[in-house]
Amino acid sequence: MGTPPQRSSLSEDQVMAEQFSPEVAKSGAVKSGATGTGRAAVIGLGSMGYGMAQSLKRAGFDVAGFDVNPAAVERFAAEGGRGATSPAEAARDADMVVSVVVNAAQTEAILFGTDGVAQTLADGAVFLSCATMDPEVARALAARIEATGRLYLDAPISGGAQRAAEGALTILASGSPAAFAKARPALDAMAAKLYELGDAPGQGAAFKMINQLLAGVHIAAASEAIAFAARQGLDIAKVYEVITASAGNSWMFENRMPHVVDGDYTPKSAVDIFVKDLGIIQDMARSAKFPVPVSAAALQMFLATSAAGMGRDDDASVARLYARITGTRLPGDPA
Amino acid sequence: MGTPPQRSSLSEDQVMAEQFSPEVAKSGAVKSGATGTGRAAVIGLGSMGYGMAQSLKRAGFDVAGFDVNPAAVERFAAEGGRGATSPAEAARDADMVVSVVVNAAQTEAILFGTDGVAQTLADGAVFLSCATMDPEVARALAARIEATGRLYLDAPISGGAQRAAEGALTILASGSPAAFAKARPALDAMAAKLYELGDAPGQGAAFKMINQLLAGVHIAAASEAIAFAARQGLDIAKVYEVITASAGNSWMFENRMPHVVDGDYTPKSAVDIFVKDLGIIQDMARSAKFPVPVSAAALQMFLATSAAGMGRDDDASVARLYARITGTRLPGDPA
Repeated sequence: MGTPPQRSSLSEDQVMAEQFSPEVAKSGAVKSGATGTGRAAVIGLGSMGYGMAQSLKRAGFDVAGFDVNPAAVERFAAEGGRGATSPAEAARDADMVVSVVVNAAQTEAILFGTDGVAQTLADGAVFLSCATMDPEVARALAARIEATGRLYLDAPISGGAQRAAEGALTILASGSPAAFAKARPALDAMAAKLYELGDAPGQGAAFKMINQLLAGVHIAAASEAIAFAARQGLDIAKVYEVITASAGNSWMFENRMPHVVDGDYTPKSAVDIFVKDLGIIQDMARSAKFPVPVSAAALQMFLATSAAGMGRDDDASVARLYARITGTRLPGDPA
Repeated sequence: MGTPPQRSSLSEDQVMAEQFSPEVAKSGAVKSGATGTGRAAVIGLGSMGYGMAQSLKRAGFDVAGFDVNPAAVERFAAEGGRGATSPAEAARDADMVVSVVVNAAQTEAILFGTDGVAQTLADGAVFLSCATMDPEVARALAARIEATGRLYLDAPISGGAQRAAEGALTILASGSPAAFAKARPALDAMAAKLYELGDAPGQGAAFKMINQLLAGVHIAAASEAIAFAARQGLDIAKVYEVITASAGNSWMFENRMPHVVDGDYTPKSAVDIFVKDLGIIQDMARSAKFPVPVSAAALQMFLATSAAGMGRDDDASVARLYARITGTRLPGDPA
């Protein structure tokens, strides 16, 4: 396809990195004990990929890293990794390539674009695809690379930057037994919780999309609820206290609404992540002729928030949109 | 307004009893230690009210009970309570009246209807209103009864039948200091967790409605997600396992989706509860000129499920509606 990897700065990668933790309980500490030998490559050294590369190094792998941002590559090399100047160079002689980018387009470019992985990856090596994407697209990418004699593991991740660096991610994996076998040392080094979700690529992506449907709706609902509470004059810190002890609680309410209570929209995960992921849900659902009115409504609120200029702010900004539309004051607003 | 209390059978009361627990952790055991003296009345001996009456008796109150279903009153009398033939009779000489009915209309009838509480309640006694309702309506009922020299405590409840019987409910209360003071022995007997949310009626109701907005959206979203997962051929038991360990989790997903996995829609809490409560949200929001598109979409799904004949089935039946519309098989469907 000849498309070069999209340019994005490291700071953009961080904003777009889907930094949420899959379990309420915090992980303990940096994982030790996982060991690996041989050569691995990590493509995409944002907040997630950088930590995953560190986990692979710690486990004993010889790790090459590439990012479109040269500063990330330099930092990686300064800390003992091998810096690469292209995906093809990073993948040369690698047993496994871990692709940690934002979407299917970037993944395709890394595989098949100019200086892509497909040009250099050894026969029988495995490509682990971590981006959130439509399961159909995952299946298509897998078929295309496997037709060339390489293995593909569908491996969406969840867990945030800290867990990535600790080797404590959740990975929702699916793929052939051969792909699992080849990838296992890397999976062991990166994941605290590995779900093996089937023997075909696409299953992992499908589970991840179900999670994203719920997560997106829950952020929009939390935003709708807390802004409506503020409009009624309720103390939203008290609302947070009551709801997190009640049947209306969600992981996302508990995790995101402190940003609203504190009036701090420094991006931990950006509005545009859910513009993308709920958009994929809509595409999948329309293609399947399956109505999804609740997530459709949630998507409209993320879109409205992005359209109002908050696309790269924290996704709790959906609450700010409700507040702005309705003239409701939230913490952090000018007096 | 002269409206008699609505007739409803005990089984209907049970279905409509909003049986969800406010905390994920289960309560320990029956509360002991709370003590009360004097006379209390409980109006509405459904699954919640019956347990609350038991908790009051256990704490030492002399408790009168009334329900439109004579069988519930007979059972209560057989177990050592005083059976009453009307709200007025139950309230005569009571220090506190606990009203545990479904909605504002029933509450109004109990207060001001034929043989209503207002005819007999002593000056300075307190009326605890536990039904979920629009905060404006709660304020209006409070003003009307307080104008006659009685006290009103806005006291929506959460916690389910078991916690009601254990004296371990969550109560979201607001009202005057005098109303709190008069009601406190009863609150102590019925609640494990008492939130004191302000000195005016309506605040408790407003917090409860925010909880119901979230709870309703989360059930609809859970239903949308699990049915869409089934449509994609995913194992929904595995979806439950993955999601409950992930950022897409909610209290309602975790509590309700086992009904879908097991194919068991025996009502724990009925679809029509959320037709009612999300309807109140829409009324409140329209009145406040506050858009709530996510809960509006959720309401439409509860309405569709009710319209399809499942209004009195378990509220996880929203998932069955998605499945029926789309020809998707779920557990429990005929092969």
